[in-house]
Amino acid sequence: MAQPIGKTYWAIAEGYIPPDDTDRPPEFVSHETACLLNTSDQEAHVQITLYFSDREPVGPYHIVVAPRRTKHVRFNDLKDPAVPRGTEYASTIASDVPIVVQHSRLDSRRSDIALLSTIAYAG
Amino acid sequence: MAQPIGKTYWAIAEGYIPPDDTDRPPEFVSHETACLLNTSDQEAHVQITLYFSDREPVGPYHIVVAPRRTKHVRFNDLKDPAVPRGTEYASTIASDVPIVVQHSRLDSRRSDIALLSTIAYAG
Amino acid sequence: MAQPIGKTYWAIAEGYIPPDDTDRPPEFVSHETACLLNTSDQEAHVQITLYFSDREPVGPYHIVVAPRRTKHVRFNDLKDPAVPRGTEYASTIASDVPIVVQHSRLDSRRSDIALLSTIAYAG
Amino acid sequence: MAQPIGKTYWAIAEGYIPPDDTDRPPEFVSHETACLLNTSDQEAHVQITLYFSDREPVGPYHIVVAPRRTKHVRFNDLKDPAVPRGTEYASTIASDVPIVVQHSRLDSRRSDIALLSTIAYAG
Repeated sequence: MAQPIGKTYWAIAEGYIPPDDTDRPPEFVSHETACLLNTSDQEAHVQITLYFSDREPVGPYHIVVAPRRTKHVRFNDLKDPAVPRGTEYASTIASDVPIVVQHSRLDSRRSDIALLSTIAYAG
Repeated sequence: MAQPIGKTYWAIAEGYIPPDDTDRPPEFVSHETACLLNTSDQEAHVQITLYFSDREPVGPYHIVVAPRRTKHVRFNDLKDPAVPRGTEYASTIASDVPIVVQHSRLDSRRSDIALLSTIAYAG
Repeated sequence: MAQPIGKTYWAIAEGYIPPDDTDRPPEFVSHETACLLNTSDQEAHVQITLYFSDREPVGPYHIVVAPRRTKHVRFNDLKDPAVPRGTEYASTIASDVPIVVQHSRLDSRRSDIALLSTIAYAG
Repeated sequence: MAQPIGKTYWAIAEGYIPPDDTDRPPEFVSHETACLLNTSDQEAHVQITLYFSDREPVGPYHIVVAPRRTKHVRFNDLKDPAVPRGTEYASTIASDVPIVVQHSRLDSRRSDIALLSTIAYAG
């Protein structure tokens, strides 16, 4: 597949990281992920902006996705500033080359896990 | 990102609020949410209309989303009239500026929680 | 909202009704649903066709959705022929007026429930 | 429905097969599936390519979907090479005739199951 697939501007309208439950094994800690796929032969320079209900947007956070690579960005790991726990937010993802974005969450607040995943909105 | 992302007319074909289980902590009460993201620099005036299987539509409910803000609208909280529990419904969301809409549900009727989330249909 | 929202041809590539577990309360029996929303002022005449991995398609099943109504079609309830349990299938949904289609499943084979929902593919 | 529905190039940005838990009944072993629907009257020749975070893509894997058939491809079952467990990946699905692609996962690492399903991105 020579041609890259995707779009350069995406939005995830739903975001929520449950309050920390860090005494679990790391793969079962609640987290939200933006899965980025760059099928092109160029680096993708990605900018993530976060939107909130009660304050101005923060970011952009800068992410690089190498050519022909995928990167799963955990919102939990974004820094300066960190994404607050227990707060509703939304995000936009802009890239200089076409990428595909999928949104997923693992919620482990109860005894068992809940998973969700949905394609982001391509603008 | 100066340009707003999204569309002005959306639909969520699936809606269902499980019967009340209000003796749980509030964040674990079953609920349905329409997550609205307004990346524009103007207020979004949003109208939500609910459709049922056996009666005429109700609404529109009026919601304002401030510029550069997200709002998570819980269908549980809509009033005049309230959304009936245990009833199947669908919804349309119209806005005067482009927004992005995502639909989610937390179902806590059993011992554990179930989550779903999906992008709404952009008309 | 005067204009109808949606498309006239949809596909759900994933279908699977878990084997029966009919000793549960009806709302917790595993089921798959196509949620149809008809925002137009005309009846929608809908034809559902099922595709399988190892035999010719069956259908179409004929469904009517009244003007300004939603209908949640349980694949479990389709008759002549019934949808086999424990079998992978897919479906197309054709309508003479624009509709919106969302796909959901409740899986209750284990002690707790699992939910999924996703927008169908609009052709 | 004479006309085939779908597109010829799809992407799934999120992929992850949990580490093996093979002492469960087969239908409850964690797995990821790409559900392919070919409504056309021709064979669909499908090529699946996998993308990783830290190495070059692998594939394409060749899949044939018969006319008017659906095929649920378990990523667990792909061979030469097998898809590594516990590794994040993404995929593209290219076909010579239009198909519809949906992505689903069953995660059974805990006592109960978690399900997700989402339409793939149509390029």
